[in-house]
Amino acid sequence: MTHPLRLGIAGLGTVGMGVLKILHEKQALLKRRTGRSIEITAVSARTKDKDRGMALNEYTWEEDPVKLAQRDDIDIFVELMGGQEGPALEATKTAIARGKDVVTANKAMLAHHGHALALQSEENGLVIRFEAAVAGGIPVIKSLTEGLAGNEITRVMGVMNGTCNYILTQMQATGRGYDALFKECADLGFLEADPNLDVGGIDAGHKLSLLSSIAFGTQVNFDKMEIEGIQRVELEDIEQAADMGFRIKLLGVSQMTERGLEQRMSPCLVPQNSPLGELEGGTNMVVLEGDEVGQIFLRGAGAGQGPTSSAVISDIVEIARGTRLNTFGQPAHTLQKVRSALSFTPAPYYIRLSLLDKPGALAKIATVLGQAGVSIDRMRQYGHEDKIAPVLIVTHETVPQALDQALLQIPTTGVLDGTPVALRIENV
Amino acid sequence: MTHPLRLGIAGLGTVGMGVLKILHEKQALLKRRTGRSIEITAVSARTKDKDRGMALNEYTWEEDPVKLAQRDDIDIFVELMGGQEGPALEATKTAIARGKDVVTANKAMLAHHGHALALQSEENGLVIRFEAAVAGGIPVIKSLTEGLAGNEITRVMGVMNGTCNYILTQMQATGRGYDALFKECADLGFLEADPNLDVGGIDAGHKLSLLSSIAFGTQVNFDKMEIEGIQRVELEDIEQAADMGFRIKLLGVSQMTERGLEQRMSPCLVPQNSPLGELEGGTNMVVLEGDEVGQIFLRGAGAGQGPTSSAVISDIVEIARGTRLNTFGQPAHTLQKVRSALSFTPAPYYIRLSLLDKPGALAKIATVLGQAGVSIDRMRQYGHEDKIAPVLIVTHETVPQALDQALLQIPTTGVLDGTPVALRIENV
Repeated sequence: MTHPLRLGIAGLGTVGMGVLKILHEKQALLKRRTGRSIEITAVSARTKDKDRGMALNEYTWEEDPVKLAQRDDIDIFVELMGGQEGPALEATKTAIARGKDVVTANKAMLAHHGHALALQSEENGLVIRFEAAVAGGIPVIKSLTEGLAGNEITRVMGVMNGTCNYILTQMQATGRGYDALFKECADLGFLEADPNLDVGGIDAGHKLSLLSSIAFGTQVNFDKMEIEGIQRVELEDIEQAADMGFRIKLLGVSQMTERGLEQRMSPCLVPQNSPLGELEGGTNMVVLEGDEVGQIFLRGAGAGQGPTSSAVISDIVEIARGTRLNTFGQPAHTLQKVRSALSFTPAPYYIRLSLLDKPGALAKIATVLGQAGVSIDRMRQYGHEDKIAPVLIVTHETVPQALDQALLQIPTTGVLDGTPVALRIENV
Repeated sequence: MTHPLRLGIAGLGTVGMGVLKILHEKQALLKRRTGRSIEITAVSARTKDKDRGMALNEYTWEEDPVKLAQRDDIDIFVELMGGQEGPALEATKTAIARGKDVVTANKAMLAHHGHALALQSEENGLVIRFEAAVAGGIPVIKSLTEGLAGNEITRVMGVMNGTCNYILTQMQATGRGYDALFKECADLGFLEADPNLDVGGIDAGHKLSLLSSIAFGTQVNFDKMEIEGIQRVELEDIEQAADMGFRIKLLGVSQMTERGLEQRMSPCLVPQNSPLGELEGGTNMVVLEGDEVGQIFLRGAGAGQGPTSSAVISDIVEIARGTRLNTFGQPAHTLQKVRSALSFTPAPYYIRLSLLDKPGALAKIATVLGQAGVSIDRMRQYGHEDKIAPVLIVTHETVPQALDQALLQIPTTGVLDGTPVALRIENV
């Protein structure tokens, strides 16, 4: 184990350069902690001649990441290019075929191809590690795969997209609307090239799908996740929720039920005086719930050069120390296919309606809810100046299907202005 | 790697029985996650004939834990007896001498003998794992040793004794005094046989000393820690602190400075709207601060059968999966000796004095503070009925030595009733 561990690094953006920097500056520390030298053999990126603030001429340059993945003189292929398919996937497959371990931060690729890649990797006695793919520098993959290995995991929850949490907490703090804050995030460079990955909940959904696989021993299945982004969250709802002691968060919840695996990523109300409710700005939090350990809350920076690079390095260190773990915590061929897609777990819901000012309007709504099996915990109608009366309802625990049924029926009453808003309440 | 992993378990109290229960109930799950069967070869405890709620006759019984540690048919010696020396230490040394890996929850033993045991173990190519020794089910040892391996650790902090946090938060919530809550904890069985281990800060100090070693690459050194328990925390201080937006916590802080390692375990003020400030009851929290990752907050149950057993099992799983880590994150023989003992890191302080109602009393105090180099940020004197005026002072950042100097001088002014209270403020 004393020969150097040789890396090929593909992708020299923020994270790639952060990894280079740590490997460069902390050689002695890493050697002390791993017992080995860690060397960079070759690197690859889209553009060679770009000022990255650090000289790269000591490393061999490969134009093509696939060529990098094929080199006989690397032990680990470090994939930091990103992208669901394309060069990242091709190069990763090539690396595995050529007998390399893989370290990646690519949640999109793993959410869609993680199971196939894990199978391919394990057939060849190789490992794929991806701590940086979920919640930046927080060691959540390690905590779940290893720290909680003695538990039946009952639930995994998380606020895992810093941009969404920034927008939602800024709406709350400043009273500015979604559109203004979306624009601010764009200007600040907080958004992915395709912003829908962030605000549409897709990026956070990718992360949740990876946690689900480890937690429940299932094949990664992002396609069967219920996803709703934050685009439709209105300031009005943030303020009303706050008034009732809640915060709105883009919350991922994954839980195994008798009907199968439920995976949801959606704006939810959480108690404001709870670890999740108190989460401000770009910070991430993951809650791991096990039958023995109870709830473990892990909180930290979910993005940024330092935190994400820290996670990449932890995977490299793990391999350097000789630890060989299955990608999703058990052999990939033993992972179960995901059966169900729909959520049946009941929860209270927050509903906001705008009623036309007609006699008996509220009674009609209450009747429709009752007929659908949705019972009301609290309801209030606000004072109003025009002919539209805002009404807030908090339901008792309701299965999502009953709520959906009610939401379909409500517009048929003819007393509604616009579309009702409904948000799940998770009392974590 | 497919032969069964054979355990000898010494100590069948709450944690030992929890471990037995998990190994019994989750055989299939653990086999799926490790690829191996995990078997209990033999067990040992002080009393054999005691109703433990579970039949033990399938396991070989050893009266003497040292005999258990000597058995040729065990791979891991699981030490759950507790105690700084005595049978736990003897049996652990024996196990290592006989070529066994060790899993232990024994912070007292490791805080005093961890370095020697690690040296002995590593000379024999063996591992000692101790996730359960710190913060119950929270994977803090794993997060620090592995998850943050790419960081220079700048600081480690934690609330790591549930009983102390229960007493302090109950004082705050109910207005009851320390003595009443101490008695309640005794009645509830929340206290160690020697309660000073809890309320004296020693148990939490043991835990901090283990984290320090991993974080800073130093030999475990509990003796050089500055420790103060919660016995002298008065309701008055809890209420005054709350009034200023703080909570009082028994907080451990460990940080490397130019003068050497500072390790403190003491009641501190922390902002009430902070993750540490919001920590209620028996919950634990550890904050790991790295130069790349920033602050990682880990929160969960710090004690109890399920959480502690979960941590023990995670260590067994780690070994079952073939992971071989150095006890304190790098070879024991490379750990540095701790140089310094004293804290020099400045912080603001909270000071409460009772002044005799004499002209110029406050001025005398202010003069003494100024002469010692302690500058005042805020000061207020409360309304009072008798001849004693309560005075609260919050200082600017002050080195502890200046504060100590001032506290020595203050009584010489002749304007003081009783002893001043001084508590460090940690703005985490």
